[in-house]
Amino acid sequence: MTYDQIFEQIKAKKSFLCVGLDSDLNKLPQHLMNEEDPVFAFNKAIVDATADYAIAFKPNLAFYECNGIKGLTSLMKTVDYINEKYPGIFLIADAKRGDIGNTSKMYAKAFFEEHPFDAVTVAPYMGSDSVTPFLSYAGKFVILLALTSNPGATDFQMILNKEGKLLYQSVIRESLKWADEKNMMYVVGATRAEMLADIRKIIPNHCLLVPGVGAQGGSLEEVAEFGMNKKCGLIVNASRSVIFASTGTDFAEAAAKEAASMQKQMAELLCNHKVIKQ
Amino acid sequence: MTYDQIFEQIKAKKSFLCVGLDSDLNKLPQHLMNEEDPVFAFNKAIVDATADYAIAFKPNLAFYECNGIKGLTSLMKTVDYINEKYPGIFLIADAKRGDIGNTSKMYAKAFFEEHPFDAVTVAPYMGSDSVTPFLSYAGKFVILLALTSNPGATDFQMILNKEGKLLYQSVIRESLKWADEKNMMYVVGATRAEMLADIRKIIPNHCLLVPGVGAQGGSLEEVAEFGMNKKCGLIVNASRSVIFASTGTDFAEAAAKEAASMQKQMAELLCNHKVIKQ
Repeated sequence: MTYDQIFEQIKAKKSFLCVGLDSDLNKLPQHLMNEEDPVFAFNKAIVDATADYAIAFKPNLAFYECNGIKGLTSLMKTVDYINEKYPGIFLIADAKRGDIGNTSKMYAKAFFEEHPFDAVTVAPYMGSDSVTPFLSYAGKFVILLALTSNPGATDFQMILNKEGKLLYQSVIRESLKWADEKNMMYVVGATRAEMLADIRKIIPNHCLLVPGVGAQGGSLEEVAEFGMNKKCGLIVNASRSVIFASTGTDFAEAAAKEAASMQKQMAELLCNHKVIKQ
Repeated sequence: MTYDQIFEQIKAKKSFLCVGLDSDLNKLPQHLMNEEDPVFAFNKAIVDATADYAIAFKPNLAFYECNGIKGLTSLMKTVDYINEKYPGIFLIADAKRGDIGNTSKMYAKAFFEEHPFDAVTVAPYMGSDSVTPFLSYAGKFVILLALTSNPGATDFQMILNKEGKLLYQSVIRESLKWADEKNMMYVVGATRAEMLADIRKIIPNHCLLVPGVGAQGGSLEEVAEFGMNKKCGLIVNASRSVIFASTGTDFAEAAAKEAASMQKQMAELLCNHKVIKQ
């Protein structure tokens, strides 16, 4: 998938919403526990309920791995279901992988060959050869961690180097040597929206995956104000606030309502920033 | 498992060798391809051949994940086999995980509850709340990436901050606030052995997991010279140089020979450094 194809979806749906499938088995609506595969039943219902309002889905691997083979089966069924029923949707493996070159090559194989994801999140700590093996797949994206949304982000990502650059800025600058916006995106947390303006000076054209709106407290308006470019350039993720909007039998309707509300707000922001016409 | 229990193994076997199970399906001896589960058949033979010379095994998750459910099945069978047949062996999940707090909690569940590993490698980029959920399990270890063995390690880990500290030094210093040597180890690559002396000034007592000897070119003598402490404090990993010592029908014998040769060298180093008596 190319960014232009993603942008077509953004314009068609007037949305830049990604729904994060952090489908914690212990938080699922009780009535789904009778299903053969409760996690897949949940995901299928969430996907069907929100696909009109979302341009991307992002299963978070941890929530599947913690259930072993059953978890991996739920993940694969979810991925296949989305790819078959919603082929235009951008499918992100939120996996935060990264290892020495010959190992990252195997992770790339896992996410781009064994599973049909369009993108994978990658941690930058191990440097170039830990990231570049993911970049050899045409039409697939690395989404590199730059400035994350969690409290611990300030521990290392905000360390100033002797030239006065923050670590996350060095990560972005160095990684520009490895790929351009055709294969690379960056994670920038909505909880640091004010820093998006600075980041846009380094990477005006790249698409940013923005977690942290919703349960983590980031503001959609601020993200758009500081981060939106003329092709939108933003994929804003919401996980818990959408998928667990209700934990009753109305969970899918509640998720649809929450996703629709975010889509409406996004449509206004896309108009205000002149990315789309009214 | 406690470090003292690991140290008992080190003294009993006169070895600090970890065998890395980077069991790439495409590199396995051809005759194993007729087995129902070639990867497990390979691992079982390697484990049996090297368990007398090794104190730890380290499956590298990427090499299992790239084979989907089959891969995860091979991994689980391997882990169960090692735990049942060699209960004293230290079992490391080389997974390089790390995410926001509520997600890292799920990864910890995956590696310490769903699978019975003793330790997991964790990437530090996302800071405290990405690491601490792994630390709430008594007798389990986080092995935090500090200074890795790959070429890309210099991209970010060696960035000097404005106080003249390298990033990997900041990572070690900051992480000392989260746990001590009872729950934390560090990855320090053998390809940067000369830096071990500096690292030992910050963490004299911690155990270090040292990859990069063997296929990556690091020197065992230098690692011992700069990194060994009075309880050894080193677990040196070799993967490809042991497990693919031969790709013929004699692969297990060749792996045993290579592991035995490393163990012999390690026994000498443990004597020379007065960790054990002759």
